[in-house]
Parts: sequence; C-alpha cells; structure tokens
Amino acid sequence: MTQDTQHRASLTPLMELVAADMERINELILSYARSHVDTVEELARHLIDSGGKRIRPMVTLAAAALFDYDGELHIPLATSVEFLHTATLLHDDVVDESDMRRGRKTARLIWGNQATVLVGDYLLAQTFRMIVRTELKPALRLMSDTAAILAEGEVWQLTTQHDVSTSLEDYMRVIEAKTAALFAAAAELGAIVAERPQAERAALNAYGHALGMAFQLVDDALDYAGETGSLGKAVGDDFREGKITMPVVLALQRAAADRTFLIAALEGGEADDAAFARALEIMQRHDAITDTIAEARKFGQRAREALAVFAESAARAALSEAVDFCIQRVS
Amino acid sequence: MTQDTQHRASLTPLMELVAADMERINELILSYARSHVDTVEELARHLIDSGGKRIRPMVTLAAAALFDYDGELHIPLATSVEFLHTATLLHDDVVDESDMRRGRKTARLIWGNQATVLVGDYLLAQTFRMIVRTELKPALRLMSDTAAILAEGEVWQLTTQHDVSTSLEDYMRVIEAKTAALFAAAAELGAIVAERPQAERAALNAYGHALGMAFQLVDDALDYAGETGSLGKAVGDDFREGKITMPVVLALQRAAADRTFLIAALEGGEADDAAFARALEIMQRHDAITDTIAEARKFGQRAREALAVFAESAARAALSEAVDFCIQRVS
Repeated sequence: MTQDTQHRASLTPLMELVAADMERINELILSYARSHVDTVEELARHLIDSGGKRIRPMVTLAAAALFDYDGELHIPLATSVEFLHTATLLHDDVVDESDMRRGRKTARLIWGNQATVLVGDYLLAQTFRMIVRTELKPALRLMSDTAAILAEGEVWQLTTQHDVSTSLEDYMRVIEAKTAALFAAAAELGAIVAERPQAERAALNAYGHALGMAFQLVDDALDYAGETGSLGKAVGDDFREGKITMPVVLALQRAAADRTFLIAALEGGEADDAAFARALEIMQRHDAITDTIAEARKFGQRAREALAVFAESAARAALSEAVDFCIQRVS
Repeated sequence: MTQDTQHRASLTPLMELVAADMERINELILSYARSHVDTVEELARHLIDSGGKRIRPMVTLAAAALFDYDGELHIPLATSVEFLHTATLLHDDVVDESDMRRGRKTARLIWGNQATVLVGDYLLAQTFRMIVRTELKPALRLMSDTAAILAEGEVWQLTTQHDVSTSLEDYMRVIEAKTAALFAAAAELGAIVAERPQAERAALNAYGHALGMAFQLVDDALDYAGETGSLGKAVGDDFREGKITMPVVLALQRAAADRTFLIAALEGGEADDAAFARALEIMQRHDAITDTIAEARKFGQRAREALAVFAESAARAALSEAVDFCIQRVS
C-alpha cells in the first residue's frame, strides 16, 4: 500500500473493472434525461454528452465490487450520484457565470440562465426519483443529506468569494461540503447496496471523503499551475472570480510586501492577465501551490489507508490507483 | 354540494380545522430552514417569514383529517409540500427577475441571484430529507415524481413565454405541471398517510388537481383584473413579461383588428402602462378575463365533486369551501 511516486497512475484499472456496468449507467443517464419538454432534454443531453470522466459513479461501482455484489441496484445508485453531480454543475455555471465547461460552451450560454436553473431542478428531482425506486432507505438518507450539504457548501463558497479573511479551516470545510461529501457518499453507497456492516460503510465513506478532498485540492492547484486545455476551463478563472482557495490562503499568509496587491486583486479590483501572472509568481515564490499539492497527497495517503480494512482485490487496487491518478493530474 | 355563489367563502373553516397542526408545521419549517451557513438560514427565513396563506400544507392536513388520521406523519408530509413550493418560488423569482413577492423585496434583490439559486437547491434537498424520514414509500414516489413534473412545467412555461402561437391546450398542460401537480400531491398525501385504498387516493388527487387548476386560472386572471396591493405583486407583470396565459390566448383568438398590437406587445415589444391599459380594454371587450374565471369555476365544480366519495365531515366542508375561497379572490 505504499505509494510509488515514480509510477504513472492511470484510471484504466478502474475503467476496465466497471466497463460493462458503465454502459448500463450511460443508458440509464440518457433515459432519465428524457422529457416531453424539448428544452429540458436538449439541455440535459448537452451536458451529459460532454462527458467528463464519471469518476464518482465508477467509485460506487468499484466499491460494490469490493464485496462481489451481484445485484442490480448499484446501477441506479451510481447513476444517481452522477445525476446529482450534473445538476450541481448546471447551477454552478449559472452562479459562476461560466462560459466554458469541459471544453464546450456551457448550457447557460446556449439556453440562458433561466432554463439552466430549471433544468438543474429537473435533474435534482430525477436524482431522487432514481434512488426512491431502489427502495433502499440508507441510500435515500445518505443522498438526501448529501444534497443538502452540497447546496450549503456552494452557498458557503459564495460567501467566502472575495473575502480575504477566509481561513484555511473555512476553506477546508467548504470543499468538504461542496466536493468531498459527494465522493464520500459515492463510495459508501457500494457498502450500502451490498448491505455491509457500519464499519465498512464508514471505511468507504472515509476513503471517498479523502479522495474528494485530494481531488478538489488538486483542482484548485490546477487553476494556477495547470494548462488551459487540460482543465477544460481557463487557468486563472478562480483568481479572476476572487475565489479563496488554498493557494490563495497560503499566499496571503506568507506574502508580506505583496499582500496589498493580492488583497486588492481578490477583493474585486484589477485581476487581468498581468495581475494573474504576478499573483502566480508570488504563489510560486512562497510555495503556495506546492504546499497545496502536498496537502492533496496527505489526503491521498488517508484515502489509500482507509481501504486497508478490505481484502486485496482488483477492485481495491483500482480504487487505490484512482487516488494516485487524481493527484498526478497536477504533478 | 351545490355552490352558493352569493355566499362569501372563507378560509376560516380550513384554518380552524388545522390550526393546532399548523403551529407544529411552522416549527418544523423553521427547523429545516436552519443551517450553519448564515446566508442559507437568513435567506430561507426571509421567504418563510413573509408567510403566504400556506394553502397547500393545509390541504394535506385536512385531507388526512377526512380519515381521522391520528398519527404523526402528516406533519412532515404537509411541511414537505410547503418546502417544495418555497424552493420553487426562490427559483421562480430568479427566472422571472421578480423584485417583489408577497409585498416584500424578493430574496434575489437582497442576496443576489447566485445565493438564491443555491438556497433553493438547499430547500429542495431539505424537502426530500423530510420525506425520507417518514419512510413512507408512496409519499417518496409521489413527491419525487411531482418535483420532476414541476420543474418540467417551469421550463415549459419559459419556452411559451413571448410565443403567441401557444395554444389553450399547451397553456393548460403548463399549469397542470407547474401548479396543479403539487396541489394534487398535497391532497393525495392525506390518503397516503392514512393508508387508504387507491380509489380514495385518486379522489383526493383529482380534488387537488382541480383546485390547483382553478387556483392558477384565477391567479392568471388576477394579473389583469386584480389590484396591485392584494396580489403582493404588480398587476400587469405577466403582460410585461410576455407570459401566455389564458386571458392572452383568448384575446389573441378573438381580437381581429387588435391582434397585431397584442402580438407585438407580447413578443417583446412595447409593453408599458399604456400598452397594458390597451390590452386590458381588448381583453374585457372580448370577455377574455370573464371566460378565464368561468373556466376556473368549472374546475372548482370538479374539485367539489371529487370530494363526494367521502362522508360528510367538517374536513370535507372545509376542503370544499377552500375551493370557493380560491375562486372568489377574483370575483
């Protein structure tokens, strides 16, 4: 279980493990995106067709595979995780006024903010319809709790925007709510569907939580350290929007002379390309991005450790390698 | 069961019937509006404090009272109906760019569209959390289906906006989805919680559906025939927003010489006070508002008829009078 930092991790083991199930999930996604209202279906499909890696439902499937689960209910549960995530993305794009998502125009640019908000509501309702049909009470509880936590996390993030007094602890709690909670639920659903004891549910929840934290930390680092093409969105978006992420919090703590410049830019002043370049240089000088990635590695380590209670298997290995893959996106 | 059109109907019998339960509902509403994120709680409370008549949860309670239901689960179910409605209102205000709601500034004017969208998501998730805790599968099914229908109806309404080719049938299907479905669910929940047979569930669903249709038709008539103060929003809003409601559809069908003016105004041209006054005069000349109210009365009749399968009781009388009250708002 030690991490081989030289090894280039890949999502392939995870993808191969769940390939057959993912086809069924893709079908179910399309069937729940249907609507007799044309705009609903077109808009939902635009986002769904633009893909994404679908890591969250893969985590649910692999977690169920840990227990050799051979029923049918992991399919709608994994799909519901992706649906909840998708609904969130639609509203995120409206809130962030984003123009690009996964390298394509956002739905709100094509259909407008109004329809995008309402189709997000439709997808949220479809998420619950899907879970209700499984009749699994613990899944319903977990996913309805998670949906509430997610929404709270999004509002919280909004209130920290442009607020340079945001602490590292605040930031951590925001990403816990807006990202880690859904990864945690995705993993825990694997134990729920296989009707495993509480300790195993907790272990998978801890795995998903740590994976989600690592994932978001890396995302936030990539917004400074990445390349525009690979992210599907523009590097520097967070900076221009005054989002207070870990690289920003660290830079604010450590930059003495440059603090005034950073505060002015983040509070809503000048945040053009030149300002971004200067901010980037300040962050690099103070190891703000490197230390964010180091924090992601710590969570990655925790995620792998949480899997230790399970017997060795292809599923466990795939879940473990997925952690490394998420972190190596940035290194 | 004949309608006494001279009699001034009142909500008082319904309100008195459910008064004790409504206090518990108000407490539960406040407890589910809580959040450790200040903005979430402040925004949710702003809308909740501004009240409204809370007709939908009262319908659920009175429907349960038809069967002398003496359990506890009608409280969270009725609350979930109001919560779903409230979540919808938040997103409606963003979509319609409304400034006033129930005589107060809308949440989006105070906290902005972004937070309002996200708090709407929070309330939607809280709705499901509440129903999940009742562990009533038919309630979960009904309410998750209803939430999806509602969202579809809202998108549909959006696509008919400014579209003067919208037919009366289209309009009816839109209000069925965006309004009647939730009233139908509110009433049916009374039979679900009391574990009554399918026929009684269907009768209450039909009651709620017809009540909801009447309610929306009257609302749409009031937007032309009402007074600004009594509506809590400005008369003429629908016209200015190019909403294609029944008075509009009828006027477009019947106005020969004035059709060009109406089309231009509704398609997004001039819709100022003078244009509204002219549109109103055209509608009155062609009985467009009167006939909308007549249609509401027909649905009112159906709602009362649907109650005929139940034995006479204070609950039945209160539900029946509530229909008249909803219609008499306009006459």
